[in-house]
Amino acid sequence: MKLHSVDLKKIKIEDPFWSKHVNLVRSTIIPYQWNAMNDLIPDAEPSHCLDNFAIAAGRKSGEYYGAVFQDTDIAKWMEAVGFSLAAEEDSELEKTADDVVDLIAEAQQEDGYLDTYFIVKEPGRRWTNLCEGHELYTAGHMMEAAVAYYQGTGKRKFLDVVQKLADLLCETFGTEEGKIHGYPGHQEVEVGLIKLYYVTGKRKYLDLAKYFIDARGVGENYFLKEMERPDFKNIGPELADYRPVYSQSDRPVREQEAAEGHAVRAVYMYSAMADLAYEYQDKELGDACVRLWNNIVKKQMYITGAIGSSGILERFTIDYDLPNDCNYGETCASIGLAMFGIRMANITRDASYIDTVERALYNTVLAGIALDGKGFFYVNPLEVWPDSCIERTSKEHVKPVRQKWFGVACCPPNVARTLASIGQYIYSAGERELYVNLFISNQAEIDLGKEKVQVAIETKFPFENKIHITVRGVSADGMKLAVRIPDYARGYQVFRAGAVAGYQEEKGYAVFMLKEDAQFTVSFDAPARFVRANPNVRADCGKVAVTKGPLVYCLEEADNGKNLSELFVDTKQKIEEVDSELFGGITELVLKGKRMQETAWDKGELYGEYPLSFSDVTLKAVPYAYWNNRGMGEMSVWMKELI
Amino acid sequence: MKLHSVDLKKIKIEDPFWSKHVNLVRSTIIPYQWNAMNDLIPDAEPSHCLDNFAIAAGRKSGEYYGAVFQDTDIAKWMEAVGFSLAAEEDSELEKTADDVVDLIAEAQQEDGYLDTYFIVKEPGRRWTNLCEGHELYTAGHMMEAAVAYYQGTGKRKFLDVVQKLADLLCETFGTEEGKIHGYPGHQEVEVGLIKLYYVTGKRKYLDLAKYFIDARGVGENYFLKEMERPDFKNIGPELADYRPVYSQSDRPVREQEAAEGHAVRAVYMYSAMADLAYEYQDKELGDACVRLWNNIVKKQMYITGAIGSSGILERFTIDYDLPNDCNYGETCASIGLAMFGIRMANITRDASYIDTVERALYNTVLAGIALDGKGFFYVNPLEVWPDSCIERTSKEHVKPVRQKWFGVACCPPNVARTLASIGQYIYSAGERELYVNLFISNQAEIDLGKEKVQVAIETKFPFENKIHITVRGVSADGMKLAVRIPDYARGYQVFRAGAVAGYQEEKGYAVFMLKEDAQFTVSFDAPARFVRANPNVRADCGKVAVTKGPLVYCLEEADNGKNLSELFVDTKQKIEEVDSELFGGITELVLKGKRMQETAWDKGELYGEYPLSFSDVTLKAVPYAYWNNRGMGEMSVWMKELI
Repeated sequence: MKLHSVDLKKIKIEDPFWSKHVNLVRSTIIPYQWNAMNDLIPDAEPSHCLDNFAIAAGRKSGEYYGAVFQDTDIAKWMEAVGFSLAAEEDSELEKTADDVVDLIAEAQQEDGYLDTYFIVKEPGRRWTNLCEGHELYTAGHMMEAAVAYYQGTGKRKFLDVVQKLADLLCETFGTEEGKIHGYPGHQEVEVGLIKLYYVTGKRKYLDLAKYFIDARGVGENYFLKEMERPDFKNIGPELADYRPVYSQSDRPVREQEAAEGHAVRAVYMYSAMADLAYEYQDKELGDACVRLWNNIVKKQMYITGAIGSSGILERFTIDYDLPNDCNYGETCASIGLAMFGIRMANITRDASYIDTVERALYNTVLAGIALDGKGFFYVNPLEVWPDSCIERTSKEHVKPVRQKWFGVACCPPNVARTLASIGQYIYSAGERELYVNLFISNQAEIDLGKEKVQVAIETKFPFENKIHITVRGVSADGMKLAVRIPDYARGYQVFRAGAVAGYQEEKGYAVFMLKEDAQFTVSFDAPARFVRANPNVRADCGKVAVTKGPLVYCLEEADNGKNLSELFVDTKQKIEEVDSELFGGITELVLKGKRMQETAWDKGELYGEYPLSFSDVTLKAVPYAYWNNRGMGEMSVWMKELI
Repeated sequence: MKLHSVDLKKIKIEDPFWSKHVNLVRSTIIPYQWNAMNDLIPDAEPSHCLDNFAIAAGRKSGEYYGAVFQDTDIAKWMEAVGFSLAAEEDSELEKTADDVVDLIAEAQQEDGYLDTYFIVKEPGRRWTNLCEGHELYTAGHMMEAAVAYYQGTGKRKFLDVVQKLADLLCETFGTEEGKIHGYPGHQEVEVGLIKLYYVTGKRKYLDLAKYFIDARGVGENYFLKEMERPDFKNIGPELADYRPVYSQSDRPVREQEAAEGHAVRAVYMYSAMADLAYEYQDKELGDACVRLWNNIVKKQMYITGAIGSSGILERFTIDYDLPNDCNYGETCASIGLAMFGIRMANITRDASYIDTVERALYNTVLAGIALDGKGFFYVNPLEVWPDSCIERTSKEHVKPVRQKWFGVACCPPNVARTLASIGQYIYSAGERELYVNLFISNQAEIDLGKEKVQVAIETKFPFENKIHITVRGVSADGMKLAVRIPDYARGYQVFRAGAVAGYQEEKGYAVFMLKEDAQFTVSFDAPARFVRANPNVRADCGKVAVTKGPLVYCLEEADNGKNLSELFVDTKQKIEEVDSELFGGITELVLKGKRMQETAWDKGELYGEYPLSFSDVTLKAVPYAYWNNRGMGEMSVWMKELI
């Protein structure tokens, strides 16, 4: 039996590190996005999202406006609302959301079809452009939203809407004659169908998800055939030279050796593959998941957990190709990596997956949102020289400051739903077994199959490494408690009743068999340390990063002046850890180093034989998650090393 | 009086360094391009260039094929042929070229119009898309070709054709009412018109060039207005969000402070501006030239003389933004930089311009062509990891190997005409004065106004730094001989009749007043040296390049193994200069350094605390001009320095 996440209604997070982020969802992001979708934000790009539904529902007249997947804005918002209501009731918000459900239900067609772009703008063209039409992608987000809303409120209406939609998909797609033998250009419906299966128990949804995965990339490419049909209409980007590898449809998924193509599509698909590998006990599919995971985390992932290193097409490139200043590293891709990782951890009970999930969440995902919740990064570079990030150049996708709500609003609501459901990553539960993955203070009631336990975690992690864990309600039948031993932990120790407690180590977890209520304190050192990259990562040769626990640090211009490229860090000297009030309280890291002197270059020459000279400097590093919260400036994760 | 280049018919180049390149033009490039334009090369992209002319001439029926500026292929070929025939007669080639002239003349319209794209494909649309229609660009290349062919053969027919075309332009464009008040989207016609003026003496051609420069960027942008006209048809790239700065038309040229936009367009325009500044004694325009030149060479030029650092739009970005592995650095742009520089040198008699001309010619321009003359680089990176240069990524424009003839064949024929006319850069001549700019062995008869002198240069430069100069035919009235003192020269000495001769130094030239025939030997040291970049060039901080004389060197995988990023050079140790038979004879540079050891990374992790360890290595550097002549492999100009 694989493990599963716990009921978000039964977990209350109050954490010195995470709460300030998580609380933004309710206080700022949900209201802001609501206004954005209603076009109430001055100077923002129009959304028209709710108007599209009103037109489809016949409540308003007018024309469709927005991206082909504009409906997903409301879906991701509803999903965040569902998670948020699970955490804390809010009758006014729930009323608003209920109204949205009514609107969505009204917009839905008689037969279950639901996609306002095609209903309003292209009636008669449904399913004719699976490549870029995004109907299945949108359907997937609707399903995830409805499941979250059902779980957060207990209300079934939205769930019924998406079941009707899912039923239509089951009738429409599949191997049987008369059905469309296609699959989505942007994977996501698979994850949605699987979640719907978990909630409804209707096996056909799982089977349809499996169909989409099985059919993908088999035989002649569906999208290339589709484009040749007379009724095909290009409604998205230029497809003249479409390459199936972009959407991981160039070969059967079980034969895919390395992560390729559009990074978000990839990790959404891998997440579904992991679920399906477990549900169907499909070893070949499971092996593909392990292979693809290892390829990413051992060869294609930034130290920040960012993935997708090409600025063009938001795609994976080749092993070890990880440029720092012109990468994409989309926030959504790191969210997808976390989704993939938690599934793998739940299946394998292997903590190494959580090491990566934590890396993605504590660095790239958090960097994706401003501390005030009002700005968002899509692209997550590891090195920025703001002056050079200009339009119509190779770096035009790199933004040196977080952007307000975008026209194509994929990342902001994705961050919102991830923060609102961070609880899903803290624990993994099974039959009489509980795994503690992340060190986030919370109180939870957790269903372990035949019994329920009350668990509390209290910690100031990641700036202190003492984690107090209390488990109550343990029956005499006993249970297994597994607490993660992070890869960066040194001197990991568990105290129980004031004494060091022994434990069994299983795949990166410290495991205890409990027969009664218990209180533990897990303690370890996670000193700041210099980390180097594999020398195959050409971009990082001769450089070091500095990390503490799960946090990757960076240098910012605000602390270290202009031209961070002139700086060299002395790795022979100790890293000083200093408490700071910055960003609501962090540990700053103070390093010793040298700065190249520019005085020799007074004549303004570009090249010359000028000798090198240095001045001693003290460098200050702050968590990458918080960069660009003090105005625009240079930033760098990797620092040159004095050698 | 400004200086001018010498008659290419009167200069015979026989140089150990240059001849192997220059001879490729006649032996390989001209025949190959002829076959390419006639679609006789298997597997190459079709050209259809000559067929387009045959159709326009009514000799054939059929449809136009190719880029909107396909005509320039034959123009640049004819220009190279003209230069080649100047150097050496070839009756068969001349016959072929004469036939081409007949064909071009037949294709020309009654009123002088000449552009097969508009004649065949878009009749009635002439001059309606100056932005991207390239008619004026094409006209400029036709003029340059006709002038070269006239100078190489003495035949006027082609010159008459382009004069008829130029006359039409004079009637069509200008400030007067009834004329089009536009200017070209891609500058080039200005240079062509000025050359035509120099050959024909017809002032109206010069005035039209001045009109194009004066009108550019003044008032409401012509291209933006043009796009709004009902008869406007987009025939090139997407113009939806066209920015005039791309074509340097965002503001009057005299107000332009820094090189911006498309690099080739920029330097072609600056070349014309330099000529016009002199001809009209226009100080404001001259100041703009100096300002723009200084901006390029002091802030936006690679050490190899490459310019245009953005892979997108082939454009300049901002000062000091010079990434090494994803730049554009188009070969044509460096050719244009040489064109601009020789004009500035001829006007100012300042050798510093030649330092840059030489840098561009000896590095980027030569790197643009394979040693066998059969492959060409458009893009000239300073660092290449071939595996990562893949399509549909941020590095898709970077090709790790030279390409065969392209569909858009701008660079190969541009290199051909530059090599075929390298003589124009060797000397600058004036009234009783002769400047020796480049150290290339040759024999020349040079017109110094009232008298002619015979000059011979004999040298093995740049691998030996002794230059023997003989001047004969000096009259009693005397003349000034100025020999360049390169910026990299150490211990510059001139010997005359076996003894050290004194000289006057004037703006980087060693100047002698001759009253009689003379024989000099110029001698200097140009030891291999480590060069650093201004620390504002963030990409090069902590790195050094190694140069010898005008040559920039690079590391290649063929000599130094895989992963050049692991290498560090010890700049405290001497650079050893070693004679080598490689590439037809070069001086190799041997450096001491260290290589990062990978053994600690055996577990295949991506990030870790592994200690650094190094092994001593000997590094071998070869001239950048010759990289990628030994198969595909990594290359790097800038090397990390042990600090």
